[in-house]
Amino acid sequence: MVMGDRRTVLITPGDPDGIGPEVLVRAWGCIAGDRPVVVGAPTPISAAARLCGLDLEIVPVRTPEEADPALNRIPLLEVPGTDLEPQWGVVSAEAGRASFAWVERAVDLCLADPTRALVTGPISKQAWALADIPYPGHTGYLAERCGVAGKEAMAFVSPKINAVLATTHIPLAEVATRLTAARIVQVARLFRDFLKNRLGREPRLALCGLNPHAGDSGVIGDEEERIVLPAAEGLRADGLDITGPLAADTLFTGKNLSRFDGFVALYHDQGLIPVKLLAFNTAVNVTLGLPFLRTSPGHGTAFDIAGRGMADTESILSALSAVVK
Amino acid sequence: MVMGDRRTVLITPGDPDGIGPEVLVRAWGCIAGDRPVVVGAPTPISAAARLCGLDLEIVPVRTPEEADPALNRIPLLEVPGTDLEPQWGVVSAEAGRASFAWVERAVDLCLADPTRALVTGPISKQAWALADIPYPGHTGYLAERCGVAGKEAMAFVSPKINAVLATTHIPLAEVATRLTAARIVQVARLFRDFLKNRLGREPRLALCGLNPHAGDSGVIGDEEERIVLPAAEGLRADGLDITGPLAADTLFTGKNLSRFDGFVALYHDQGLIPVKLLAFNTAVNVTLGLPFLRTSPGHGTAFDIAGRGMADTESILSALSAVVK
Repeated sequence: MVMGDRRTVLITPGDPDGIGPEVLVRAWGCIAGDRPVVVGAPTPISAAARLCGLDLEIVPVRTPEEADPALNRIPLLEVPGTDLEPQWGVVSAEAGRASFAWVERAVDLCLADPTRALVTGPISKQAWALADIPYPGHTGYLAERCGVAGKEAMAFVSPKINAVLATTHIPLAEVATRLTAARIVQVARLFRDFLKNRLGREPRLALCGLNPHAGDSGVIGDEEERIVLPAAEGLRADGLDITGPLAADTLFTGKNLSRFDGFVALYHDQGLIPVKLLAFNTAVNVTLGLPFLRTSPGHGTAFDIAGRGMADTESILSALSAVVK
Repeated sequence: MVMGDRRTVLITPGDPDGIGPEVLVRAWGCIAGDRPVVVGAPTPISAAARLCGLDLEIVPVRTPEEADPALNRIPLLEVPGTDLEPQWGVVSAEAGRASFAWVERAVDLCLADPTRALVTGPISKQAWALADIPYPGHTGYLAERCGVAGKEAMAFVSPKINAVLATTHIPLAEVATRLTAARIVQVARLFRDFLKNRLGREPRLALCGLNPHAGDSGVIGDEEERIVLPAAEGLRADGLDITGPLAADTLFTGKNLSRFDGFVALYHDQGLIPVKLLAFNTAVNVTLGLPFLRTSPGHGTAFDIAGRGMADTESILSALSAVVK
C-alpha cells in the first residue's frame, strides 16, 4: 500500500449457496469506492445480482491492483475451475471446494503483499467438511497458512462490545481440557495490542471465568484456580489492565459494558451470545495475529434465508470499513 | 391458602453478610401488604434496617399465620441458635450455617402446607460449602427435601425473556457428559407446563444446541445428534411446540425474543448470560417441579456492595409478585 493510496481490499464471497454473494452485491454501491476486488467466480456473483435486480458488470482482472471498481462494475479475480450455479440454501461439497479455493487464492495474494487486506464472506463449515477440507473455518486455515497456527485469535469488534475467544470451534466437552493459562495469556495480549492501537490508550479488559459463577471461589470446578487465575495474575504482573476471572453470567451488563473496553471469553458461546445479542448486525470478526488485516461479517451463511435478497448488509459494511480505515 | 385470602409467603433473608437483608428491609414498604413472614434471625434484619435508616419493628411469631405485617413491622419466625452480627462482604461458615437453617425451617413450613409459598434471598454457595452443607445451592436442597431430586428445574422469568436450564451449578467440563436426552425432555416439559399455565396457551419454545453453531450439522461434537435432537424430536412427537436444537449464539436476538415464549438452555451460562443481559434486575428464579411455589431474586449475594444500602430491590419485588399473583 503506497501512502496516500487506499489499501487494496480483497473480498471472498463465502459459500455461494449462502447469503454471502447477495450481501456483497447489495453492499456494492456503498463499498465500490474502497476499491475492493472480488476473488471468486462469476456465476454466483451474477446470479446474486440478478436475484437482487442489480445491473452489475463483472470485469475479470489478473492482479488486484489493475482493478477499477465502480458502482456498477465489480472487478473479479477468477479462480479457475470454481465456477458453479448457486443452489441457495443447499449445503454441498462443490460449494465448499469453491469457497475454500477462493480463500486460498486471496491468502496467496495477501501473503505476497501484506499491505493488502482481506474481507471474507461466510463459509459453511459443513460444506468444507463435505469437501474434505481439513479446517473447521477461516481462522484455522488462515493461521496455518500464515505460520501462526495455534497463536492466532478470533475477536469481535462492534460499537457496543469487543470480545476475543480463547477457544473457538471445538466441542463444549473439550473446552475445559484444552484451555491453558498460556493460551489465555496469548489471546489477551493480542487483544490488548489490537485494542490499544485502536483506542490509543491501554484498554481495560475483563476476563471471564470458565465455570458457573467463575467457580464460586473453588466450589464449582477447579479451572479458575488452576488455569484462569494464574493467567490473569501473569497478565497483571506484565502491566495489563485486566480484571477477573469474573462470573460470565453477570459480566455483560450495563455498567460493565462501559467499564471494560474488551472481554476475554473462554469459549465460543460465552463470548458470542453477548456479542450477537448486543451487536447482531454490526459485529465484525477480526483475526488477530496474522501478518495482514483480515475481517469478516459476524453473521454466517444463513442458508434459511439465502436466495431471497433479504439478508442484512450492515455487517459486511462494518467488516469492510474496519480494514479501509 | 383459603380462597379469597392472600397466599402466605415465607421469605428467607439469604446470607446475612450479603445484600439479602438490606434489599428485604428496603423493599418492605412495597411488600408488607402481601403478608410476608421472615424466617430467620433478628440481628441481621435489625442491622440492615439501621444501615438503611429504616425504623422497623421486628415482631416474633410462632406460626406464619399469626403474623400481622405492617409497613413498619416485620413478623419474624426465628430459628433458634442462628442469630449473628452481620459482617457485610465476608464469606463465613457461621453465616452459611444460619442461611441454610433458615431455608430448612421455611421448607418445613411449606411442606406442612404447600399452599404457602417461599421466596429465598441469595445465599453464598461458598459459605454453605464452608459450613459443610452438602448442597451447591437452594435448588438442589429444595429438590432433595421435596423428594424430587434430579427432577426439578431452575427457570428464570422476566418481562423480556424466560429460560430454563437443563444443567446448573456443575463444572463446565461435566456438562456434556452429564447431559441426557431424558433430562432435556423433563426440563422442557416442566417449563412448558409452567409457561402454559402462565400464558393460558401452548408456549413456543426454543431449544439451544450444546456445541458452537449447534454442532454445525455434526462437524463440532456429536451431542446434538446423540442427545439434543432425539430429545427435541420426542418432545415434538408429544405435541410440544419446540424448535431446535438451534445455535445458541444467534438465538437470543431481537426477533427470536418475540418469536419464542421460552428458551431451554443446556448449561448455566448459556441461559444466564442472555437472562442477565436482558433482565438483570427483573429476572426471577423459579424452581419448577416442587410441591409448593418458590421463587428468588435473580441476583446473588453481591458481597462487593453488601452493607452499603445501594443494592437494587427490583428483583426481590419481582420474586414476591410472582408468588402472590
